[in-house]
Amino acid sequence: MMIIMQPGASKSQVAHVINHIEENNLFAHVIEGVEQTIIGAVGESHAVPKEIFEVLPGVLSVTRISQPYKLGSRQFHPENSVFSLDGFAVGGDEIAIIAGPCSVESRTQLLEIAQAVREAGANALRGGVFKPRTSPYVFQGLGEEGLEYLAEARELTGMPIVAEIMAVSQVDVMVKYVDVLQVGARNMQNYNLLRAIGETRTSVLLKRGLSATIEELLMASEYILSGGNTRVMLCERGIRTFETATRNTTDINAIPVLKSLTHLPVILDPSHSTGDSAYVASIAKAAVAAGADGLIIEVHNDPSHALSDGRQSLTPENFAKLVRQVKAVAEAVDRKLAPVKANL
Amino acid sequence: MMIIMQPGASKSQVAHVINHIEENNLFAHVIEGVEQTIIGAVGESHAVPKEIFEVLPGVLSVTRISQPYKLGSRQFHPENSVFSLDGFAVGGDEIAIIAGPCSVESRTQLLEIAQAVREAGANALRGGVFKPRTSPYVFQGLGEEGLEYLAEARELTGMPIVAEIMAVSQVDVMVKYVDVLQVGARNMQNYNLLRAIGETRTSVLLKRGLSATIEELLMASEYILSGGNTRVMLCERGIRTFETATRNTTDINAIPVLKSLTHLPVILDPSHSTGDSAYVASIAKAAVAAGADGLIIEVHNDPSHALSDGRQSLTPENFAKLVRQVKAVAEAVDRKLAPVKANL
Amino acid sequence: MMIIMQPGASKSQVAHVINHIEENNLFAHVIEGVEQTIIGAVGESHAVPKEIFEVLPGVLSVTRISQPYKLGSRQFHPENSVFSLDGFAVGGDEIAIIAGPCSVESRTQLLEIAQAVREAGANALRGGVFKPRTSPYVFQGLGEEGLEYLAEARELTGMPIVAEIMAVSQVDVMVKYVDVLQVGARNMQNYNLLRAIGETRTSVLLKRGLSATIEELLMASEYILSGGNTRVMLCERGIRTFETATRNTTDINAIPVLKSLTHLPVILDPSHSTGDSAYVASIAKAAVAAGADGLIIEVHNDPSHALSDGRQSLTPENFAKLVRQVKAVAEAVDRKLAPVKANL
Amino acid sequence: MMIIMQPGASKSQVAHVINHIEENNLFAHVIEGVEQTIIGAVGESHAVPKEIFEVLPGVLSVTRISQPYKLGSRQFHPENSVFSLDGFAVGGDEIAIIAGPCSVESRTQLLEIAQAVREAGANALRGGVFKPRTSPYVFQGLGEEGLEYLAEARELTGMPIVAEIMAVSQVDVMVKYVDVLQVGARNMQNYNLLRAIGETRTSVLLKRGLSATIEELLMASEYILSGGNTRVMLCERGIRTFETATRNTTDINAIPVLKSLTHLPVILDPSHSTGDSAYVASIAKAAVAAGADGLIIEVHNDPSHALSDGRQSLTPENFAKLVRQVKAVAEAVDRKLAPVKANL
Repeated sequence: MMIIMQPGASKSQVAHVINHIEENNLFAHVIEGVEQTIIGAVGESHAVPKEIFEVLPGVLSVTRISQPYKLGSRQFHPENSVFSLDGFAVGGDEIAIIAGPCSVESRTQLLEIAQAVREAGANALRGGVFKPRTSPYVFQGLGEEGLEYLAEARELTGMPIVAEIMAVSQVDVMVKYVDVLQVGARNMQNYNLLRAIGETRTSVLLKRGLSATIEELLMASEYILSGGNTRVMLCERGIRTFETATRNTTDINAIPVLKSLTHLPVILDPSHSTGDSAYVASIAKAAVAAGADGLIIEVHNDPSHALSDGRQSLTPENFAKLVRQVKAVAEAVDRKLAPVKANL
Repeated sequence: MMIIMQPGASKSQVAHVINHIEENNLFAHVIEGVEQTIIGAVGESHAVPKEIFEVLPGVLSVTRISQPYKLGSRQFHPENSVFSLDGFAVGGDEIAIIAGPCSVESRTQLLEIAQAVREAGANALRGGVFKPRTSPYVFQGLGEEGLEYLAEARELTGMPIVAEIMAVSQVDVMVKYVDVLQVGARNMQNYNLLRAIGETRTSVLLKRGLSATIEELLMASEYILSGGNTRVMLCERGIRTFETATRNTTDINAIPVLKSLTHLPVILDPSHSTGDSAYVASIAKAAVAAGADGLIIEVHNDPSHALSDGRQSLTPENFAKLVRQVKAVAEAVDRKLAPVKANL
Repeated sequence: MMIIMQPGASKSQVAHVINHIEENNLFAHVIEGVEQTIIGAVGESHAVPKEIFEVLPGVLSVTRISQPYKLGSRQFHPENSVFSLDGFAVGGDEIAIIAGPCSVESRTQLLEIAQAVREAGANALRGGVFKPRTSPYVFQGLGEEGLEYLAEARELTGMPIVAEIMAVSQVDVMVKYVDVLQVGARNMQNYNLLRAIGETRTSVLLKRGLSATIEELLMASEYILSGGNTRVMLCERGIRTFETATRNTTDINAIPVLKSLTHLPVILDPSHSTGDSAYVASIAKAAVAAGADGLIIEVHNDPSHALSDGRQSLTPENFAKLVRQVKAVAEAVDRKLAPVKANL
Repeated sequence: MMIIMQPGASKSQVAHVINHIEENNLFAHVIEGVEQTIIGAVGESHAVPKEIFEVLPGVLSVTRISQPYKLGSRQFHPENSVFSLDGFAVGGDEIAIIAGPCSVESRTQLLEIAQAVREAGANALRGGVFKPRTSPYVFQGLGEEGLEYLAEARELTGMPIVAEIMAVSQVDVMVKYVDVLQVGARNMQNYNLLRAIGETRTSVLLKRGLSATIEELLMASEYILSGGNTRVMLCERGIRTFETATRNTTDINAIPVLKSLTHLPVILDPSHSTGDSAYVASIAKAAVAAGADGLIIEVHNDPSHALSDGRQSLTPENFAKLVRQVKAVAEAVDRKLAPVKANL
């Protein structure tokens, strides 16, 4: 950490800071500048919050030098983490495609979509059963009934299941049914939930919060990793900005930035990051061109009757077209799509 | 709802939309514009999500006319809601001041601060026992031990207790100890938690999420209100913007906007909304001048040794000074500070 | 325009609005909703600002239905606009690549870079001579001397020249020397400058402002188009958000959104939109995958001695590598790179 | 400046950075951390851009320690700058109120409003004659004709005149007519304009750009100050954020932050920062409570027929009410309103 003193800070204020540094088992290095003094605090500073220096008299600001996250950092683990799911791997050369409806609405709907997306080239099936909705007055998901349909869809298609978990109380039932626990944007900093998931050994798809920085996303993953669950995928799903032409702003920069900072797989959700089915294919291609390891895409057999997110859902036909386009881009950047399950 | 058709939408697309409107028990009114057709959907549309129209062929966009929230709306409840707590009321003429440490760190620390803020003019005591921290490697709060210290501080000072709840599993213990359940910014859209709190009859201080719109804050309060718990205070605590000179950007506009949209009390947290003790008093005064019903302020007896948020904590002396200044501003806008408890 | 009345607006307020609509030569259509009345104002409303209705008593809000821009709209001009420059075209099937230094620093520097980028595959040469710098204390550009070097570079390589114009007073000299007038992000709403450029018949590269919406970018282009200069290319160059991991946030969504709203060519500047040479190639590929018509990229022969923007500048070697990668992606989306000039 | 090396940077990379520091006439201090090396660059670094270090091999990031602005900094000029205008002063104890129409629309309109705002308590008259409008299809201002009406209004009321300048070519005529040159948000980084204004000795009201940081606002003022024109007032007028409930988000934090960083007077424009006349008075009071030195407010005698910004304009009656409320708040924070001109 670098502690920057105010111009005109007194010698005793500097001495006080040095004292504080040493109390925290760090070493102090002092640089006398023309206008200001800077004090470096060197040592094992991961567990020392910078706030404790910011409040000392005469301190202007404190800059953390080393990254506050550890287990997810590429610095400590230079090789990509590659997790195998049923029939394919995420984080290596292959691009994985997760697809399915926003919400599981009925057995028929789910099984129909599951087969359609498998045929079109999906590797895993997504479907929400507990839905975080802005309004308490609209459809909130089928709950455990939906999980049974998902299990049946896995049986039928051979595809692993991805579903969102919203509360600690759902961990047991979710772990029983699903292959990948999705943590939604609204829960990215629900630390109790992250810790509980860290205790499981089920794969996790951790979505970036609407206004979370890349560093905060990495810190959130640290809560899971530090519980011993290393199977964490990160997911960019659009951030909130001033632009209203699209539902969110896809932070495409986050793809190469995350790939340089962490060894964890990084995927992108163009359905939420654009909010409009007309733009999903363009952004899916962009994500793969930028280096993403996978995609998660909303598909509905009847978007105009979807109970949620219909506007951003693709029809199975458009999804199949998207897969063909993404395949060409993947090959242009020397990657390939993960293999699709054959008929069982 | 107004459904705006794309220029060139066909007659059968318009007919399809009208059909959809009627299926949802609304009435359709068609306006043929020069370039575009607009269709008004009139009726009880609270429970009809606009997405179901957005996905229909030929639809450009859908605008909701009536507010999607109901119980919190001033339209349905024109009078201010006023809740009495122990010894004072929130939402009426009086300005309530809640103060205390970010975290309860020890019995001595808490009792000392509690007495200091009561003497300086606080009406209620805040103190965190379950702490949502960005990093899993730093202090996470004292848990139930902290709640016991809070109860002791209430005993000693007569002030009601405000503490943050982070998980559904904490509801029972929290309700037992605290007078006001604080829902933090990171949990504003933790809907399971909001519903669980809606089932209690304990007062709630609901903080606006870091990137939540004012409408989303009102929708979140609807989750609590619709459970039958009507004692909800809303709290502006700064939003995330591009500006980095302060930790957050105080959305002072939110004060008059919320006061016009809802009958619920509205308070402001200048400690988090600025992140710097040097600016807390200025923003506290601004909040009261703009019409806020109260303040929640971090005070620590030794900010430079605080285990969290020291930088934004006031000393008891500076807090006492702030109370005097806020009092003058309150009177300038024809309000007054809530009465402070006498010594027990 | 749709004028939404407040719940409880009186009949005479509604009548007043209708009167106002008719005064502006529009027709009024009234919809009586359950809670509110909505009034559609139909007719030629391009020149009628919505503010004049927003202020009428009883009005809650006004929504504009038709787009406020016209000449750039794809609605009025469904075919792509394709502009030929010297040796290639922008806006058609070909992807154009503009490259060169941030600032023209010296004759030697410019000629060396010009030849290097031509050999690596650039179609046009960029180079700043008037530099908008945040600080008045740093290098501000070579001015007209720089223009002469640019002319010499064009002579040598055959590539057209792109340079930024900062003021109305520079129009005459710029038009004499350059092939494409670049309007920088800071000047996107410098309307006097836009009008002056609209009077010329020189091609324009209009960059999106740091916090301009897509609609505002289109409105800014309207200032140029309405002067009769139709050769306008739009450029996404990153927007300002809360994320600080990169200099700006590339709004990749803007590519397909702009391509759907306007017939004008759309290019992307990954150097500014990321601010870091390490991420430029990833975002360049993403832009082409998303549908961009071209790229503008900063290249410097000695980034560590560049007088500006060294951090985001590629070396000629890395630029050559980027061109090869972009070529593969372009072909994957059924496009091709514009042909490079042979040696003269 | 602090140069932070990447973990694993080589000794020769460190040596290279030290070399570069010394080439720029600064001194290097090296701190060897556990994971990383940090190098302090000490000396007169105002004119050394940090980019030149950011591009060196092995460098992770560069942090500027000293402020990049100088003439406006309170560090170099601890006392408040106080400028007297005709009959009052800005930047001292008194709160100055500037009021008037968004645009000068006609002689009658202006003279009527001028008298009304003087009577209600305004100290200076604002009125736009060159209007920056998003759309080229709407009213663009009266130009020099408007300046003549402003001069007549000054004659009539004794109030100094504030009007926006949009282009270098307007400097001569504006200086002839107006007392305070307003630089609008869109031109905050129009450096040619700032330099030209720096050459004059006319007072300046510099508005913060829509997405400008506080530091960028101070850097923009530096362009004017470094030309020798020291009479610069800074104006917060709302920033662009994700919140759409108001036209802009008033950054009230900017008031105490600016007052601590600079000696220049700081005023606030609640008309633009809220965009809605219903919220103007609340935010005006908040600004004064937070420490602002003045206000600039849009007033129109017939808001519903205003040619621009009617929605955010107060009637003279509401403005008079606002002045009375602001007076009370000013006194509560130990300040007073600037004296109003008596009838001439």
